[in-house]
Amino acid sequence: MIVVMKEGSTRAEIEQVMQVLKQKGFGVHLSEGTEQTIVGVIGPRDRVRELGIENMSGVEKLVPVSNPFKLASRAFHPDNTTIQVLDHVVGGETPTIIAGPCSVESRDGLIEIAQAVKASGAQLLRGGAFKPRSSPYSFQGLGEEGLKYLAAAREETGLGIVSEIMEPGLVELVASYVDVLQIGARNMQNFALLKAVGKTQKPVLLKRGFSNTIEEWLMSAEYIMAEGNPNVILCERGIRTFETYTRNTLDLNAVPVVQHLSHLPVLVDPSHGVGHARYVSTMARASIAAGAAGVIVEVHPKPEEAWSDGSQTLTLKAFDEMARQVRQLHELTKSFQRQEATM
Amino acid sequence: MIVVMKEGSTRAEIEQVMQVLKQKGFGVHLSEGTEQTIVGVIGPRDRVRELGIENMSGVEKLVPVSNPFKLASRAFHPDNTTIQVLDHVVGGETPTIIAGPCSVESRDGLIEIAQAVKASGAQLLRGGAFKPRSSPYSFQGLGEEGLKYLAAAREETGLGIVSEIMEPGLVELVASYVDVLQIGARNMQNFALLKAVGKTQKPVLLKRGFSNTIEEWLMSAEYIMAEGNPNVILCERGIRTFETYTRNTLDLNAVPVVQHLSHLPVLVDPSHGVGHARYVSTMARASIAAGAAGVIVEVHPKPEEAWSDGSQTLTLKAFDEMARQVRQLHELTKSFQRQEATM
Amino acid sequence: MIVVMKEGSTRAEIEQVMQVLKQKGFGVHLSEGTEQTIVGVIGPRDRVRELGIENMSGVEKLVPVSNPFKLASRAFHPDNTTIQVLDHVVGGETPTIIAGPCSVESRDGLIEIAQAVKASGAQLLRGGAFKPRSSPYSFQGLGEEGLKYLAAAREETGLGIVSEIMEPGLVELVASYVDVLQIGARNMQNFALLKAVGKTQKPVLLKRGFSNTIEEWLMSAEYIMAEGNPNVILCERGIRTFETYTRNTLDLNAVPVVQHLSHLPVLVDPSHGVGHARYVSTMARASIAAGAAGVIVEVHPKPEEAWSDGSQTLTLKAFDEMARQVRQLHELTKSFQRQEATM
Amino acid sequence: MIVVMKEGSTRAEIEQVMQVLKQKGFGVHLSEGTEQTIVGVIGPRDRVRELGIENMSGVEKLVPVSNPFKLASRAFHPDNTTIQVLDHVVGGETPTIIAGPCSVESRDGLIEIAQAVKASGAQLLRGGAFKPRSSPYSFQGLGEEGLKYLAAAREETGLGIVSEIMEPGLVELVASYVDVLQIGARNMQNFALLKAVGKTQKPVLLKRGFSNTIEEWLMSAEYIMAEGNPNVILCERGIRTFETYTRNTLDLNAVPVVQHLSHLPVLVDPSHGVGHARYVSTMARASIAAGAAGVIVEVHPKPEEAWSDGSQTLTLKAFDEMARQVRQLHELTKSFQRQEATM
Repeated sequence: MIVVMKEGSTRAEIEQVMQVLKQKGFGVHLSEGTEQTIVGVIGPRDRVRELGIENMSGVEKLVPVSNPFKLASRAFHPDNTTIQVLDHVVGGETPTIIAGPCSVESRDGLIEIAQAVKASGAQLLRGGAFKPRSSPYSFQGLGEEGLKYLAAAREETGLGIVSEIMEPGLVELVASYVDVLQIGARNMQNFALLKAVGKTQKPVLLKRGFSNTIEEWLMSAEYIMAEGNPNVILCERGIRTFETYTRNTLDLNAVPVVQHLSHLPVLVDPSHGVGHARYVSTMARASIAAGAAGVIVEVHPKPEEAWSDGSQTLTLKAFDEMARQVRQLHELTKSFQRQEATM
Repeated sequence: MIVVMKEGSTRAEIEQVMQVLKQKGFGVHLSEGTEQTIVGVIGPRDRVRELGIENMSGVEKLVPVSNPFKLASRAFHPDNTTIQVLDHVVGGETPTIIAGPCSVESRDGLIEIAQAVKASGAQLLRGGAFKPRSSPYSFQGLGEEGLKYLAAAREETGLGIVSEIMEPGLVELVASYVDVLQIGARNMQNFALLKAVGKTQKPVLLKRGFSNTIEEWLMSAEYIMAEGNPNVILCERGIRTFETYTRNTLDLNAVPVVQHLSHLPVLVDPSHGVGHARYVSTMARASIAAGAAGVIVEVHPKPEEAWSDGSQTLTLKAFDEMARQVRQLHELTKSFQRQEATM
Repeated sequence: MIVVMKEGSTRAEIEQVMQVLKQKGFGVHLSEGTEQTIVGVIGPRDRVRELGIENMSGVEKLVPVSNPFKLASRAFHPDNTTIQVLDHVVGGETPTIIAGPCSVESRDGLIEIAQAVKASGAQLLRGGAFKPRSSPYSFQGLGEEGLKYLAAAREETGLGIVSEIMEPGLVELVASYVDVLQIGARNMQNFALLKAVGKTQKPVLLKRGFSNTIEEWLMSAEYIMAEGNPNVILCERGIRTFETYTRNTLDLNAVPVVQHLSHLPVLVDPSHGVGHARYVSTMARASIAAGAAGVIVEVHPKPEEAWSDGSQTLTLKAFDEMARQVRQLHELTKSFQRQEATM
Repeated sequence: MIVVMKEGSTRAEIEQVMQVLKQKGFGVHLSEGTEQTIVGVIGPRDRVRELGIENMSGVEKLVPVSNPFKLASRAFHPDNTTIQVLDHVVGGETPTIIAGPCSVESRDGLIEIAQAVKASGAQLLRGGAFKPRSSPYSFQGLGEEGLKYLAAAREETGLGIVSEIMEPGLVELVASYVDVLQIGARNMQNFALLKAVGKTQKPVLLKRGFSNTIEEWLMSAEYIMAEGNPNVILCERGIRTFETYTRNTLDLNAVPVVQHLSHLPVLVDPSHGVGHARYVSTMARASIAAGAAGVIVEVHPKPEEAWSDGSQTLTLKAFDEMARQVRQLHELTKSFQRQEATM
């Protein structure tokens, strides 16, 4: 952390700042310019920020310089992390393709979808049993009944199951049915939930909050990892901006930035990211070209009959096409990355 | 909800859309312009959006026209709601002033602060016992011990207690100590938590998420009210923008907008809203002039020794001054509003 | 500027960075932590950023620490600047109230409005002769004819005239008619225009771009001042966010922040800031309580017949009421500020 | 445009609204629901918005339903537009690759870069002669001297020249040297400039403003086209968000959205979009996979010696690699699009 002093701050003010920092056990390092003086502080940046240094006489502002995440950082773990889900490796040689309906609706319907997406090359099946809905009057999901249908679909197809968990009290229940626990965008900073899933060893699909920075996203991964669960899969799903033609603004820049800062695998959800089926396949392709380890998309045999999110849902035929393209692009992108690694 | 057809959509496409809507039980209303045809849909907008109408041939987009909240809307309840907390009425004739430390730190320190803010005119004491921290390595609060100190401070001073609740499993515990349950910005769409506090009759201070729209905020109030708890106090606390000189961008526009749309009282938190003590009193004044029913601020005898958020914390002396100004401005603003009501 | 080195950067990498900086004439200052090394750089930050330092081996990122504006900064000019426009002083003891129609429509209509707003206490008349419209098919303003009507209104009422200038080639023409040259939000970084108005001595009302930071805003003031024109009046008019209930998000935080960083007077435009007449008076009051030197609002005898922006325009009666409230609040706010200055 | 009436609005209020609209010459269409009444308005939406309808008694809000652009819309011109620049076709079978230094610095240096990027497959050379800089103290470009160097580089290499134009008064001068007039992000709504370049027949590279919606961007294209110049090339270059790890947030969603709404070709500028050289090639690849017609990037033989924007500048070697990848991806993406067209 850097403490920037005001232009014209006095010697006494500078020394007062340094003294407070030293008393609290921080290392300090003074750097005086002709116009501006700064005090470098050595120690955890959150602890520095919590001091009221900024209120002290002569202080202009605090400027953080280091990243606050450790376990999630590439500095801590230079090699890419891969995560095993049944017989599929997320972050490995083949792109991860997760598909399924927004909400689990019926046992037979779900199995039909599962068989179709498996045939198209998906390794994991998604489907909401507990649904986060902005309206209390919207369909809230089938609950445990939905989890049973998901388990049945795994039984039939061998696909791993990804489903959202919304409260700490349900971790045990949901974890007993699924292979990957999904933390939704709205719960990215539900710290009680992060700690609860951190106490399991289940892989966690951690979606980025729609207005969270990449740093906060990695700190939420850190919460899970700090509890002992290293199996975190990140998932970019669009941020909120002023644009209205798309439901969200899928931030593909986050993919290479995360890969620079962290060793964790990162997927992309173009369905929520753009919110209109007509753009989903295109953005899935762009995601893979940006280096994503895979995609998660919503599919339904008849999107206009889906119980939720029909407008962003691919048909099974469109999904099959998309999956084929994703594999081709992933192979080409991998070959580019191999070339760069040898440059 | 309005379905906007593409320019050049065919008669068959239009009829197909109308037929699907009718089959699902919606009323429809056709309006054909020379260039553009629209289909008005009568029925709950969330249900309409969930149909895959947007994927149908000839459809350009869906446009919502009605507000999705009911219990929280002014149309449903034309008069302002007031909420009793001990002997203070939130939304009543006197401005609500809530003050206290970011985190509860010690019993004696808390009581000292409580006595001071009461002397300055605060009616409620705030203090975090369970703290939402973006880093797992930051101080997470004293937990139940902190709640006990808060209850002791009420005992000593008569101030009502406001404290944050972060998970459904702790509602009973926290509610047994405090007078107002606070839902923090990060949990504004933690629906399990909203439902849990909705099952109590405790007043709830519902902070706006830092990237949530006013509509979503009112929908979260609706979640609480739909469970049977009408005692919702809204609190604006800053949204996230590109600006970096302030920690957040306090959105005071939200105050008159909420008052137009809803009957619920709205407070403002300038401490989190701007994030720097030097701007807090000014923005507290602006909040009251914007029509807020009161403010919630962080205070500490020695901000530079606070365990968290020192940089946005007022000294007791600055708070005393601010409270006096808030009362004067509130009276003047009320007199303006009374004049307007008679125009 | 601070150069933050990667964790694990080598001694050779650090020295290479320092050498490049020294060669370019910058002072450097090394600060080595146990985990992170930073290099403080003394010299103009824009010049540092332009070096490709960030591309050098071992470098993590650059972090600016100083403000880039000089003439506009309070450090350079500690006292508040006041600006004389005819017999009114902007930033002085009385609040500046600027009112008028969005567009100049007719000579007689404009004079009628001018007389009314003068009677209500406005000192300056606004009105667009050249209009920035997002559609080429919208009314673009009366041009020089409109300027003539504005001059006629000044003749009749003594009000100073504020009107927008959109291109460098028209500075001489517009300046010959008006008392204050307005730079609109969309032109805040039209540097050719900033330089052109900087070559005059006319007061300039510089609106903040709807997605510009406060720093960029002050840099645009700096452009004008660097050309020799010190008479810059800043005007906050709302930023763009995800919120849709308001046309923009009026950022009142900007008022105290600008007053901390700069000596220039700052006004607020609540008409564009919120975009709905029903909220304009309330936000005008909040602006003054936030410390603004005044407001600029759109008024029209019959808003529903205005040629542009009718939905955010006050009636003459509502304006009269607002002006009275603004004066009362300004006096009260000034008294608060005087008390604070003596604390 | 839709006029949404308040719940509980009276028959008299509804009829008053309809009468005003009819008097102004708009067609109206009434649609009464059980809770909400809406009035559909047929006619140009900007003219409707300018009426003060929203201020009328009983009116809740206005909701636009149609797109305001005509010449730029795909409805008006269903086939993709291609634009000839010397012997290259933008939007044609081969991807457009534009490369060059941020600023033109010297004649020989520029020619060296031009020869290198031509050898790597670029068809057009970029280089700033007039530079928009947020600080008046930053290097502002070589001006006409820079244009001469650019023309010399075309002479030597046959590459077409792209350079930025910042004011209407310089259109003739700049157009006499370059092959494509670039409108920078900050000038996207400099309407005087848009009209001026619209009066030429030179191709215009229109960058999206960093906080402009896609609709506003297409309206700015409409400004140019309405003056008679159909040769508009769109260029996405990143929007402003809360994220700080990237300089901007490159919005690749804009690529398929623009292609849905408009017939104009769209390029992407990953250099400004992410602002860090280490991410540029990756995002160039993602841009092509998103369907962009090409990319524009900054290159320099020694980025750390460039006079501006060094931190986002590719080396010649990295550019050569990127160009090769872009071509491979463009071919693959085109093959996907051809398959889709036949589905």
